[in-house]
Amino acid sequence: MVFDTPFTRTFGVRHPIVCGGMTGVGTADLIGPVAEAGALGFLTALTQPTAQALGVEIDRCRSMTDQPFGVNLTLMPTIKPIPYEEYIAVIIERGVPVVETAGRSPEPFLPALKAAGIHVIHKAVTVRHALKAQRIGVDAVSIDGFECAGHPGESDLPSLVLVAAAADQLRIPIIASGGFADGRGLVAALALGASAINMGTRFVATHEAPVHENVKRAIVANDEHATDLVFRKFGNTARVARNAVSRQILAIESEPDTTFADIAELASGARGRDQVLTQGDVDGGLWWAGLSQGLIHDVPTCAELVDRLIVEAHGIITDRLAAAIAG
Amino acid sequence: MVFDTPFTRTFGVRHPIVCGGMTGVGTADLIGPVAEAGALGFLTALTQPTAQALGVEIDRCRSMTDQPFGVNLTLMPTIKPIPYEEYIAVIIERGVPVVETAGRSPEPFLPALKAAGIHVIHKAVTVRHALKAQRIGVDAVSIDGFECAGHPGESDLPSLVLVAAAADQLRIPIIASGGFADGRGLVAALALGASAINMGTRFVATHEAPVHENVKRAIVANDEHATDLVFRKFGNTARVARNAVSRQILAIESEPDTTFADIAELASGARGRDQVLTQGDVDGGLWWAGLSQGLIHDVPTCAELVDRLIVEAHGIITDRLAAAIAG
Repeated sequence: MVFDTPFTRTFGVRHPIVCGGMTGVGTADLIGPVAEAGALGFLTALTQPTAQALGVEIDRCRSMTDQPFGVNLTLMPTIKPIPYEEYIAVIIERGVPVVETAGRSPEPFLPALKAAGIHVIHKAVTVRHALKAQRIGVDAVSIDGFECAGHPGESDLPSLVLVAAAADQLRIPIIASGGFADGRGLVAALALGASAINMGTRFVATHEAPVHENVKRAIVANDEHATDLVFRKFGNTARVARNAVSRQILAIESEPDTTFADIAELASGARGRDQVLTQGDVDGGLWWAGLSQGLIHDVPTCAELVDRLIVEAHGIITDRLAAAIAG
Repeated sequence: MVFDTPFTRTFGVRHPIVCGGMTGVGTADLIGPVAEAGALGFLTALTQPTAQALGVEIDRCRSMTDQPFGVNLTLMPTIKPIPYEEYIAVIIERGVPVVETAGRSPEPFLPALKAAGIHVIHKAVTVRHALKAQRIGVDAVSIDGFECAGHPGESDLPSLVLVAAAADQLRIPIIASGGFADGRGLVAALALGASAINMGTRFVATHEAPVHENVKRAIVANDEHATDLVFRKFGNTARVARNAVSRQILAIESEPDTTFADIAELASGARGRDQVLTQGDVDGGLWWAGLSQGLIHDVPTCAELVDRLIVEAHGIITDRLAAAIAG
């Protein structure tokens, strides 16, 4: 059972499903099985300490699958400059076929990537940003709705409206991201005009994801209410799993005159990665989770998840929707 | 071209489309044409000053169509008690086949409505409320996502996740509401497990809607960013069209220690209905608009709108989705 959409044709993958870059989670342990399952997964470059280490991780992933996979490169202003050129050189040298960029515009890096025949997907949270990405020449956009884990932007536009509004204006393939976890969501996204879905939280709750079992159990246990939007006060909103730390941060944010310095230590990504993802203390730091956790009820393997999702989506199209118009 | 879903079967209407109750807008002028177009529209009881006036409005609507239509009854605590029993007596006496309730639980009124053979649809903004409505015996729930105009509740759950989460637990028909304006949205809702969509803002921007032309033009001109969430500070969030008044209210709300009294005059619904809906001064008061305004680009008749939407939805199922699985 396969799907045939502008996304699957452009990127040469079996299924219109993406596992986009997730810092601390997007290693070969997860992305190898995602690729084997026929979806398009992304190693996260900045999870590796150096460009050289990224090269080793790419090799490790390739040893696990002969299916295509990509590398995510998150472009952000940092105090200590990140040697993006070095990472890109390794990506090109290793023959990675597709790069996902997020954050700042990928424009400075496009000539090198394009010259190497690499497809580029850029993440956007508004139609305006998506149009800009199309204009500078990316091959597809991944549009993050308000539902997504991590950074949904400050406009609070859910996927249902955002994807349709984007489809009204874009001609390149759209990957719908935020709120997707099953075959129902895939069909909804295709109906809205996307040609694939991205899933983050759903892939974290898989057998292969390199995070502590407690995190996977928490995603299964949590419902759609159990997230918080932190850092809103600082114009850098992030959707995280609701826990002791997120509540503490929101309490501090609600006080007048607080600054980011007042929560910087609590908000440390390193703390979340260590305490939560590695140690399994799900109340020990901030960790990202999307609203889709309300739709996640188990911890399958990547292959089970993707197969089930494709069968479900097929069935919705051939059975439920076909029956609805057969009257 | 018809659809056949649990909703169309339960309510005996041609199309799985609802025009739910809109205060000040849900008069026979709009609901007659909605019914004629084959969708299920609701007169708003409280838009009429008395139960007797509601009876006259029902008669007027019936003179315009032989298709079914309903009455919306919004149940809220008010300073001056509303004679709900009188309104219900008129609804029963006039043989209205379906009532939409919103706000408080309709439980006290269900025995009388059920005894008269009237179907009841209750509006809910969380799965828990929807389950409660099912338990007390309503025939369907209309689930309002975060995208909706008016009151989305305080949980900020968009339709994409909320409808699917509700479908996981409910057995009665679900009407997906919030963010829907076209055939793409209808197919997405059906895929998620709903059996109809509700549209508010979209029906306000129709030829027949009894509001000033300027309001319709503003909905067409506004994009998906042009709404505000007011009254959040008071636990009574409302999504309104962004304008001078909504910005003024948000500025007051952002000050510490403000109370509802500080914005009560600006927030007056009567002011919005008079200045905006009647006079056409779209900056003259608060008025409701949903995120779906980003998907609204014209002012068709109700018949044109419904026909176009059904043809578009059919085409998505038979063409786009069928092609996606034909690979």
